[in-house]
Amino acid sequence: MNFRVAVVGSGAIGSYYGGKLAYHGRDVHFLVRSGLEEINQLGIDVRGRKESFHLAKVRAYKTTEAIGPCDLVLIALKATNNDLLPELISPLLHETTALLTLQNGLGNEEFLARYFGAERVIGGLCFICLNRVSPGVIEHFDYGHLTIGEFTGFPKPRTQDIASEFKRSGITCDVVENLMRERWHKLVWNVPFNGLSIAAGGITTQDILQDDSLRLSAFRLMDEVILAAGACGNRLPANVTFEQMKRTETMGAYKLSTLLDFEAGRTLEVEAIWGEPLRRAQAAGASVPRLEQLYAILKSLNSRRQ
Amino acid sequence: MNFRVAVVGSGAIGSYYGGKLAYHGRDVHFLVRSGLEEINQLGIDVRGRKESFHLAKVRAYKTTEAIGPCDLVLIALKATNNDLLPELISPLLHETTALLTLQNGLGNEEFLARYFGAERVIGGLCFICLNRVSPGVIEHFDYGHLTIGEFTGFPKPRTQDIASEFKRSGITCDVVENLMRERWHKLVWNVPFNGLSIAAGGITTQDILQDDSLRLSAFRLMDEVILAAGACGNRLPANVTFEQMKRTETMGAYKLSTLLDFEAGRTLEVEAIWGEPLRRAQAAGASVPRLEQLYAILKSLNSRRQ
Repeated sequence: MNFRVAVVGSGAIGSYYGGKLAYHGRDVHFLVRSGLEEINQLGIDVRGRKESFHLAKVRAYKTTEAIGPCDLVLIALKATNNDLLPELISPLLHETTALLTLQNGLGNEEFLARYFGAERVIGGLCFICLNRVSPGVIEHFDYGHLTIGEFTGFPKPRTQDIASEFKRSGITCDVVENLMRERWHKLVWNVPFNGLSIAAGGITTQDILQDDSLRLSAFRLMDEVILAAGACGNRLPANVTFEQMKRTETMGAYKLSTLLDFEAGRTLEVEAIWGEPLRRAQAAGASVPRLEQLYAILKSLNSRRQ
Repeated sequence: MNFRVAVVGSGAIGSYYGGKLAYHGRDVHFLVRSGLEEINQLGIDVRGRKESFHLAKVRAYKTTEAIGPCDLVLIALKATNNDLLPELISPLLHETTALLTLQNGLGNEEFLARYFGAERVIGGLCFICLNRVSPGVIEHFDYGHLTIGEFTGFPKPRTQDIASEFKRSGITCDVVENLMRERWHKLVWNVPFNGLSIAAGGITTQDILQDDSLRLSAFRLMDEVILAAGACGNRLPANVTFEQMKRTETMGAYKLSTLLDFEAGRTLEVEAIWGEPLRRAQAAGASVPRLEQLYAILKSLNSRRQ
């Protein structure tokens, strides 16, 4: 049976994962809201030190009506565009269509569940460093790992099936039992490093590590996210801070994609990465003063770019 | 007997207070490190809604050797230039020369005491909104009040004498018994408003008040400074936060001089306003997470402007 996949949002993430599935022969249909002509002409071109591939013929569409019902929808829009999703996704649904959000931060699964029912919703975390140079042209810096989990609880047969589709396309893909814990785990890194790289003046992760005050701020923010995660019922392993710092040290001096986006005048996902975690932390009674302040600063910086 | 005054640092603060003393007939000598020609030609011109005056003939000098010994030295350099002071001040000293620092934040009295002896040192707090447009040309937005106090403790006869010199020149001037408490009191305002106006993207005090998250951040930072002040032995009145917020509400939407300086590429007094208070708070065991993070961010922003 043919497994039809739609990709909504053809930025770096959508182009990479959708492109990789298509390159390995899956039946993938891309919604391309801007740059359709370029993608039709040039395809999807992923370039990197560790990995490069070119998908010459892309099934690209201007609307999701033109795509029609699919078995799996990869959602890779910025969370700041979530208000478009109810209209965009409806034409892609049949009775058992699964919705896999590859978006950052907290609140995206809940949003999809509200409109389309919680049973459809799967969350995916992308551990990857990408940058979209132009429509269809993606720089791949490092990693590529995907972690997926059911929004409503334990993995189902379909979760494993979807993971297999990714694996057969050369994408490392884990299935986890507790999606929310993974989301919080990722925030332990994203909250400090994405946040401070922007708030402290457009700097790299290495700049943060090399400045005593900023490195300390990053550590303390990590502690706050771990505290918040625990208060929200997602206890993280004790060595998570150490492990994340160690990983960061090997990353080298490159600018995060959130920072590149920000510098290019695009909107930050302030609510998904900082606002929603803050609100959940506060609702659970966790004290997160640094997150509160960083959120206020980033929200202000962001509102002045629009 | 003639009372000789030297002004070291002819930015907005030095030009205003020194200019006002000279305008009222005091014997004031200005060290002008840049813009000497303009000041010799055009004098000092203070323009404002509430107050304007023009001092046509300014006693301006390129070196302090040319000024020679004085009874009072007003120090109005940026704290970031303190390393110049030992050499600049020496030629101005006789046995009882008093050094009055009008600089911001914490640590300036200690610096002068280390080089010239604590007995000479007086601290002054300027409650004034000024902007230097060009050498000698100062915009006066509001206020003008001066508060002075002895570094070593209670007021002396000379403290009152100096206050009288200011008062006779139309400058409201209080003498306080506890200089450090006044310094901390002023930081309750400067730490959040100067800091957030820069970190949150070059915004006015009104922008801070009108944004729920930023206003809350300002309140919480105020709480931290009050806590730190108390831990350092300077208990502030219970209503200080309320009073400062109320005062801020009447200020209107103008950009603080620290922000204007920052936007003009000039160096922030990061250590005097955020770094030194943070270090003293931590040494006294006060928990100041927001101050710690704000300091890290501002220090990074500042280092990238130089």
